[in-house]
Amino acid sequence: MDKLVKTLEDAIRLCGLKDGMTVDFNHNLRNGDHVVAMVMREVARLRIRDIKICASGILDGMIEQGLGELIETGVVRAVETTGNSILLGELVSRGRFSDLCRFHTHGGRPRSIINGEVKIDVAFVAAPTADPMGNCNGVDGPNAFGSMGFSMTSSRYADKVVVITDNLVPYPLNRASIDETLVDYVVKVDSIGDPNGIATGSLRPTRDPKALKLAEYSAAAIANSGLLKEGFSFQAGAGGASVATAKYIKDYMKSNNVHGSYILGGITSHSVALLEEGCFETILDTQTMDRMAVQSLRNNPRHREISDNMYANAFAKSCAVNGLDVVVLGALSVDTDFNANLTVNSAGYVASGPGGHTDTSAGAKMSMIVVPLVRTRYPTVVDRVISVTTPGKDVNVVVTEYGIAVNPKDAELKTRFKDAGLKVVEIEELWKLAESMTGKPAPIRFGDRVVAHVVHRDGYVIDEVRNVLG
Amino acid sequence: MDKLVKTLEDAIRLCGLKDGMTVDFNHNLRNGDHVVAMVMREVARLRIRDIKICASGILDGMIEQGLGELIETGVVRAVETTGNSILLGELVSRGRFSDLCRFHTHGGRPRSIINGEVKIDVAFVAAPTADPMGNCNGVDGPNAFGSMGFSMTSSRYADKVVVITDNLVPYPLNRASIDETLVDYVVKVDSIGDPNGIATGSLRPTRDPKALKLAEYSAAAIANSGLLKEGFSFQAGAGGASVATAKYIKDYMKSNNVHGSYILGGITSHSVALLEEGCFETILDTQTMDRMAVQSLRNNPRHREISDNMYANAFAKSCAVNGLDVVVLGALSVDTDFNANLTVNSAGYVASGPGGHTDTSAGAKMSMIVVPLVRTRYPTVVDRVISVTTPGKDVNVVVTEYGIAVNPKDAELKTRFKDAGLKVVEIEELWKLAESMTGKPAPIRFGDRVVAHVVHRDGYVIDEVRNVLG
Repeated sequence: MDKLVKTLEDAIRLCGLKDGMTVDFNHNLRNGDHVVAMVMREVARLRIRDIKICASGILDGMIEQGLGELIETGVVRAVETTGNSILLGELVSRGRFSDLCRFHTHGGRPRSIINGEVKIDVAFVAAPTADPMGNCNGVDGPNAFGSMGFSMTSSRYADKVVVITDNLVPYPLNRASIDETLVDYVVKVDSIGDPNGIATGSLRPTRDPKALKLAEYSAAAIANSGLLKEGFSFQAGAGGASVATAKYIKDYMKSNNVHGSYILGGITSHSVALLEEGCFETILDTQTMDRMAVQSLRNNPRHREISDNMYANAFAKSCAVNGLDVVVLGALSVDTDFNANLTVNSAGYVASGPGGHTDTSAGAKMSMIVVPLVRTRYPTVVDRVISVTTPGKDVNVVVTEYGIAVNPKDAELKTRFKDAGLKVVEIEELWKLAESMTGKPAPIRFGDRVVAHVVHRDGYVIDEVRNVLG
Repeated sequence: MDKLVKTLEDAIRLCGLKDGMTVDFNHNLRNGDHVVAMVMREVARLRIRDIKICASGILDGMIEQGLGELIETGVVRAVETTGNSILLGELVSRGRFSDLCRFHTHGGRPRSIINGEVKIDVAFVAAPTADPMGNCNGVDGPNAFGSMGFSMTSSRYADKVVVITDNLVPYPLNRASIDETLVDYVVKVDSIGDPNGIATGSLRPTRDPKALKLAEYSAAAIANSGLLKEGFSFQAGAGGASVATAKYIKDYMKSNNVHGSYILGGITSHSVALLEEGCFETILDTQTMDRMAVQSLRNNPRHREISDNMYANAFAKSCAVNGLDVVVLGALSVDTDFNANLTVNSAGYVASGPGGHTDTSAGAKMSMIVVPLVRTRYPTVVDRVISVTTPGKDVNVVVTEYGIAVNPKDAELKTRFKDAGLKVVEIEELWKLAESMTGKPAPIRFGDRVVAHVVHRDGYVIDEVRNVLG
């Protein structure tokens, strides 16, 4: 009667996984995830090859746990993901995959799954708590990671679904993010991973004076955008400047008695503070970024779990990014046409991925890219980005520590900022200033082989990424 | 940006509803529902005809509000439903529909929608609370009715989805049973109905001594079935004898310190008492049957809302009925082969429908039909039922006030009952006793026209219903 199988090997065999098939994973435990590498090592042991991994994200921790070797040896032929990993990017850019990799936005991923462009043979769902029939959630259990939004669409459309949990509870689970009607097999493992690995890297708060300056400028831009009023909706990333911006916004809202509507996006303890201190009514959570946010999702009925489809799919009947007033974003580089590059770093290597950048930029009334003008020896504002991830038409404002550039199409916004005395500059000035500081970067020696496509949320290939030589 | 339209007419026009199409409704407000008749009167006013209504249930209140007239005048050509209405049944049996009607089980309905056998053009979702993008739930608002399980599958598979609410709240709703990704339009109306109409008819508790006797016998059968132990799972209907049985079970569990697992089915205040008094761990709720149960679903995290698909679809990867230990059911009649008739009454008229009867009978380890031996002048236990709804192979026990009959295939159960001193009788004895009390019923004069199909949960036509003459 139940779906419990003893080992991952059993589950893989029962699902009929074969050479060339596509498997899916969530990446919610991020650098702490054990499931991606654990499953793929087992796939390799069973001598199955040429697998495509369709994962909501690939992180360095997964590569270090053995996934890198499986790519080099052809067990994995390609990935379709939203990005995130430097080590993955190096393998992509060095041409280590035998097949084309594709980078999707968070909304493009469910779009491509729902419309059949990506056909998932087996979805392996890391689940912090599950019952023997596959009902599962992300908020209970020792390794709770929060929202299961990234597995909601893939588990619905996959041929076979395997729930992998380290906290098996009796049937029926009281609270389920994914229900048993979608699940074929359940496997109990010792550990799905370490939630301490969720909040690493970009998630740390900042004390960097440059980042604080950026935050001050971006907060001023938001405060003077005409959007920060009753019913305000907001997404801020997990980077230092974004977090600092959110803190300024909180102070502004409290002292001006402004009540916002909802917070969207990767949810952190900073988002939770905005909810709990009464600045916002609701959190919509498709990805939970730290332990305090997991607790909030578990206990606060105003903190709602949503699917990746509801978060950002442009082809759903509607999605939450479309109601955003303001989103604060980062970028590897941005150019004088306001095109943003989230994919290829200044050395020519894939280093990140679209994430929710393109989706929120398209949806929000004001999308702001908040970046330092230069990073180490490289300009952040450039004449022409190496790789376009988010088209310039969807970016309204670029904030640097040397001033705020407004997209020429947003004349009213520019006037508002100028009238408020903000330091408004032309994007070309920022480019020239940056280049005067770093010198013109040496051209990168790309090869002839297309190793990856950057897929726009609407489904077209917005950029082809070539291998790096040398 | 939002999906709010001013009138039902606007929504109907925008959905492109045309002659011959299929529309869907939930029936959660039961006799208090205003939405089915309201929408269909508007459809008629727009001179749209030949509509098929695919509803989770049709109740007398809907017929009385004008639906009957729309059937007689050809606005409605057929219904696909799980039953419930005497007035609807009269129209079916008198041949008032121009097309064939079909009666599904609760699990067969989502099966037929998911596999495309029933294609819904427009789902009209009565929602006690909704936001302007269509996120909606059944537990908030003045006319809260509880679980939206019956709309979960149809709204996912319908071409167009219109949410109809009388409690419109700002975006985004904190708690959503159906999310915005599935919804095209939202209409605000004065009232979706009266929740006092939910708990009518069969839902009243009983003081009838015959029903109490039945309950005592069925409780004894359960207590001696070998199933009433730690982890027990249970569904009892909302009829008087079922409710009384549940009370006996509660006393038994408390005095014997037995802790059950889950309660399934139409959920009443009696189910809630079993949860709150610690007899069971969880309620799985696909249909909420009274106000106290609505409050429980709203506030108790151990009371979980599930879809009709998860409740009972035999073709889902699993469903909750399959884990049941015991289900207590009624029937219009049951025959010496243990076939149960839930569809056609002793006068030959369609009077009810399969509901969850066939699903739970197939899924539960012990399905019990608890019926008085005769009703007015008609036998309940008969030689051969007029119409088969649930096949005898799936019925284990028939309980009457004259004794308990066990299906011959369940020899072990029969032995258990006998050893416990229960009054075990042969089903043929019950039939003969019943007929000795009522006389042999006069044969019913059926016509030649097939007016309805009873569709088994597995998808085959288990019975053809013919029109009644005279």
